[in-house]
Amino acid sequence: MISEKMHEQVKNSSVIRAMFEEGKRLAGIYGAENVFDFSLGNPNVEPPEEVKKAILEIVNDKNVIGIHGYMNNSGYEEVRAAIAKSINDKFGTTITHNSILMTVGAAGGLNVILKTLLNPKDEVITFAPFFGEYRNYVKNFDGELIAVSPNTIDFQPNLKEFKDKITPKTKAVIINSPNNPTGVIYSEETIIKLSEILREKQKEFGTDIYLIADEPYRELAYDQAEVPYLSKYYANTIVGYSYSKSLSLPGERIGYLMISDQAADFENIISAANIANRILGFVNAPALFQRVIVKCLDAKVDLEAYNRNRELLYKELLSYGYQCIKPEGAFYMFVKSPIENDAEFCSLANKKNILIVPGSAFGCPGYVRIAYCVAYETIVKALPGFKALIEELK
Amino acid sequence: MISEKMHEQVKNSSVIRAMFEEGKRLAGIYGAENVFDFSLGNPNVEPPEEVKKAILEIVNDKNVIGIHGYMNNSGYEEVRAAIAKSINDKFGTTITHNSILMTVGAAGGLNVILKTLLNPKDEVITFAPFFGEYRNYVKNFDGELIAVSPNTIDFQPNLKEFKDKITPKTKAVIINSPNNPTGVIYSEETIIKLSEILREKQKEFGTDIYLIADEPYRELAYDQAEVPYLSKYYANTIVGYSYSKSLSLPGERIGYLMISDQAADFENIISAANIANRILGFVNAPALFQRVIVKCLDAKVDLEAYNRNRELLYKELLSYGYQCIKPEGAFYMFVKSPIENDAEFCSLANKKNILIVPGSAFGCPGYVRIAYCVAYETIVKALPGFKALIEELK
Repeated sequence: MISEKMHEQVKNSSVIRAMFEEGKRLAGIYGAENVFDFSLGNPNVEPPEEVKKAILEIVNDKNVIGIHGYMNNSGYEEVRAAIAKSINDKFGTTITHNSILMTVGAAGGLNVILKTLLNPKDEVITFAPFFGEYRNYVKNFDGELIAVSPNTIDFQPNLKEFKDKITPKTKAVIINSPNNPTGVIYSEETIIKLSEILREKQKEFGTDIYLIADEPYRELAYDQAEVPYLSKYYANTIVGYSYSKSLSLPGERIGYLMISDQAADFENIISAANIANRILGFVNAPALFQRVIVKCLDAKVDLEAYNRNRELLYKELLSYGYQCIKPEGAFYMFVKSPIENDAEFCSLANKKNILIVPGSAFGCPGYVRIAYCVAYETIVKALPGFKALIEELK
Repeated sequence: MISEKMHEQVKNSSVIRAMFEEGKRLAGIYGAENVFDFSLGNPNVEPPEEVKKAILEIVNDKNVIGIHGYMNNSGYEEVRAAIAKSINDKFGTTITHNSILMTVGAAGGLNVILKTLLNPKDEVITFAPFFGEYRNYVKNFDGELIAVSPNTIDFQPNLKEFKDKITPKTKAVIINSPNNPTGVIYSEETIIKLSEILREKQKEFGTDIYLIADEPYRELAYDQAEVPYLSKYYANTIVGYSYSKSLSLPGERIGYLMISDQAADFENIISAANIANRILGFVNAPALFQRVIVKCLDAKVDLEAYNRNRELLYKELLSYGYQCIKPEGAFYMFVKSPIENDAEFCSLANKKNILIVPGSAFGCPGYVRIAYCVAYETIVKALPGFKALIEELK
């Protein structure tokens, strides 16, 4: 009785559900503390203290009424203005609150902007490996996701193939840096070249191609690495941001779209995105957390906790013989599977109570993703399993 | 550059935006306190004290970690179980947490269930007057909204026409009781007959037709009026609920879908709705407010405040010569326009600084909607304007 599109989805989701069930089964046998779940990007680091403080301040403020009521679909104007100012201060842009649309997380924001832009059969290009949900988001609006094959040397985008894949039907390009699943930050050189290619192709085809930067991991960059801000390099830029990882609030669904005021058809995009936010059923980003995040614009989660995990896992896996690029951001490590079949390797890992995700789910078979946003002890206890795994395969 | 669908939306939305701009213009000239905005269903009654208490309890509980993290896409199991129990206690049903999917408000829930069910060109029937967003929600998934024309005698659904409009392509029926915009509660007799018709047609066409009850106003029923619980009358029932009005939390986007365990293809619908919630970009209902509402299942907003507004407005408007059914629930009054053209009447009302919405927006021209979820004083101060309006038209 369910729709054909969803029928297909239910069928495909059974692999992930099977993994989830397997995790529960293992926890039942060995105890949850002996199952090492590296499968999900659910931050284990608690939000900074400022979050709790902000909630208490807002809720206890007797002068404020209607804090849980409706506001404009785009969010509170003062929240949007504060975010615009904070972006301007950090990146030297000159945007106003008009460029900011508060959204139900980055996932909500991406759906809003894709609904705004896509006609059926329009093409959206992304670079493998990529967050698998992009495929679903684009399909929601009958667009077609075109994946550029991975550059497994350093996991920077494969720009030669990218150029060849742009067509007159290319409406948008989604990039995600720091990247899920590799942790790689797309370099400034990459961004400059990518922007040049886009401008060239826009001219060639007489089209506008929007560059959508999905940036939930922007603040999770190690060793003071710089993450270029896209609107400085390319006019038709839209940034999807989320506080899910920067403030460890993924369950609260709070983020925004930044639509560059330099983008073609700016006014119409703003109006349409506002309406899309409403009619898709989001209506508005959660009210209380709009006010919370504006009090936490300079707060940060404890990045050092993730960094400790990163250093330990990277050093040890390399010493066992695994091959891997050292992640520069986010909390994922993308490791070459010691055997060709990444799904089979994940099954073998399961037998050591280690849950990881096949690279195929990210359009990059032959690799596996390890989400290291877990307790340090979980990594310590899982290491012997990782070691035994590769030794048994030698 | 925006999509064709959204281009149409932007064009159509200009009427509402024009009204909003007009309101701002009037407020600029006469002062906000002298502009009487009855155009929006934004509750002016504050949430019950239990809401604040619940937020403080949860945030201050030192034993709870990860309260802002991800949970299952369907929501916290204990929250879903508590809601299921509360429904069972109130309505004698026997559902479990499996029937409950936590959603980003009722608007989010409706989009989730429509994505779950609809193939392109599938038909969804609703009864005029109806909440205009249904048209957008159905269009999001390329379905077709079929409106049954209004029964302006008592605003109960026109069941004769309903029967004629059911076809083999009818996938769902949306009803909304207490109704926006009329405030009418669909009687038990209506529900029984409507269910019989649906069963008959299911048999005739060999199809399943889902009855979707959009119930954000369930708790706002005056004079102890009963609102029938649909799953007791019809197996293929899905209820979209929201705490937006029952707890005055519309900005927080918290609600649920109740999918009856008697519904055909129950297991697949549950799985698909779960996935739809994720891939539409909601991901999950806001985490903190899931925990908040479960502590407030028996809390109620001050219904008497709305009732006072209802009684005053109804009595006075009738005494001036307006025609109107007395609302039994919600906070809307649906008044016959003294002139045929409802939009023109709204323009005349604007000139008295009164903002109301034409019935055409609800598929019922010749009427206007007055949202009386405003301060009592706003009504008192607006009454002379209403009186002058109709006198000038006599």
